[in-house]
Amino acid sequence: MVTSPVVNTYPLSSYTFGTKEPKMEKDTSVADRLARMKVNYMKEGMRTSVEAILLVQEHNHPHILLLQIGNTFCKLPGGRLKPGENEIEGLKRNLSSKLAANTTGLQPDWQIGDCVATWWRPNFETIMYPYCPPHITKPKECKKLFIVHLSEREYFAVPKNLKLLAVPLFELYDNVQRYGPVISTIPQQLSRFQFNMISK
Amino acid sequence: MVTSPVVNTYPLSSYTFGTKEPKMEKDTSVADRLARMKVNYMKEGMRTSVEAILLVQEHNHPHILLLQIGNTFCKLPGGRLKPGENEIEGLKRNLSSKLAANTTGLQPDWQIGDCVATWWRPNFETIMYPYCPPHITKPKECKKLFIVHLSEREYFAVPKNLKLLAVPLFELYDNVQRYGPVISTIPQQLSRFQFNMISK
Repeated sequence: MVTSPVVNTYPLSSYTFGTKEPKMEKDTSVADRLARMKVNYMKEGMRTSVEAILLVQEHNHPHILLLQIGNTFCKLPGGRLKPGENEIEGLKRNLSSKLAANTTGLQPDWQIGDCVATWWRPNFETIMYPYCPPHITKPKECKKLFIVHLSEREYFAVPKNLKLLAVPLFELYDNVQRYGPVISTIPQQLSRFQFNMISK
Repeated sequence: MVTSPVVNTYPLSSYTFGTKEPKMEKDTSVADRLARMKVNYMKEGMRTSVEAILLVQEHNHPHILLLQIGNTFCKLPGGRLKPGENEIEGLKRNLSSKLAANTTGLQPDWQIGDCVATWWRPNFETIMYPYCPPHITKPKECKKLFIVHLSEREYFAVPKNLKLLAVPLFELYDNVQRYGPVISTIPQQLSRFQFNMISK
């Protein structure tokens, strides 16, 4: 038989969560965000963003860690690469900025695994596609999602204006209304992996 | 940068299509199909099915080969494993049964690549999930989708009661109404690959 790649998942209770200073969103509206994207595109070309799928388990079912802003909007931890920045290094930098304590001694050991999805933004609009649409020669953004393997124990420092949620795959699946097209199809992206659910 | 796995895709016009004797569906209704599944489950345990994602390109955009039955229903080529059968061998056998000429000399060289998705059927019902739902200890079917790398030239013999369609990713994406949950999210499963579009 074909062996599936394995992802170890540890109980949510293995991890410790604290808080740190707020990380405010750079934009206060979608229009502002798209306008800033356009300015940056003029200066730096296509935006590349990298986001992490951090997995834990509860009741033997995989859960994904999402950052919630306000009462509804959820996002994966991650962010934009600097011009010329390496994807792996850029993802580690963004994860530490979002989720690590400010003291270097407590940085989680971010182990960046497979890229599981790539999304393209053809225009300065909110819609993205899991391919670069035909006839689009200059996409405005490429977003890559990576599995990040967590160690058995970690300390996460969550910015005070955000909440870190562990959301089960069954809640994400087929729930584009709540989580959007990128996050709601993560269960399909992960279906080829075998989850090794480790209990304490 | 992280390198994406590469899939070579050749123009649809590289391939030759002929016909062969009809391969009738074993069931004439969904109820019949679920009833037959139940009988087989009693005899053989969980059904394992394997299906192929065969890629071609048109206008520099990837297309997937689907078998159309009647005027609306589409499926991936593939089928059920025999009890104890190896996934790779079983997929090759099913692909040859569905798409190869009956003469052994013209068998395509099926090169089975990565498993890109796994779907589970918890009950004798049509609904499937891209994970085994919590509390389901005896799923009734596990369906695996594999990329199958096509050579530059192949001859396909299509059963006379079926049509073989090359459907672009942009037609499948976000089109669960037409293609169902398994096929309509193939664009997301494939988004981590880099398509090497080879022209003639």
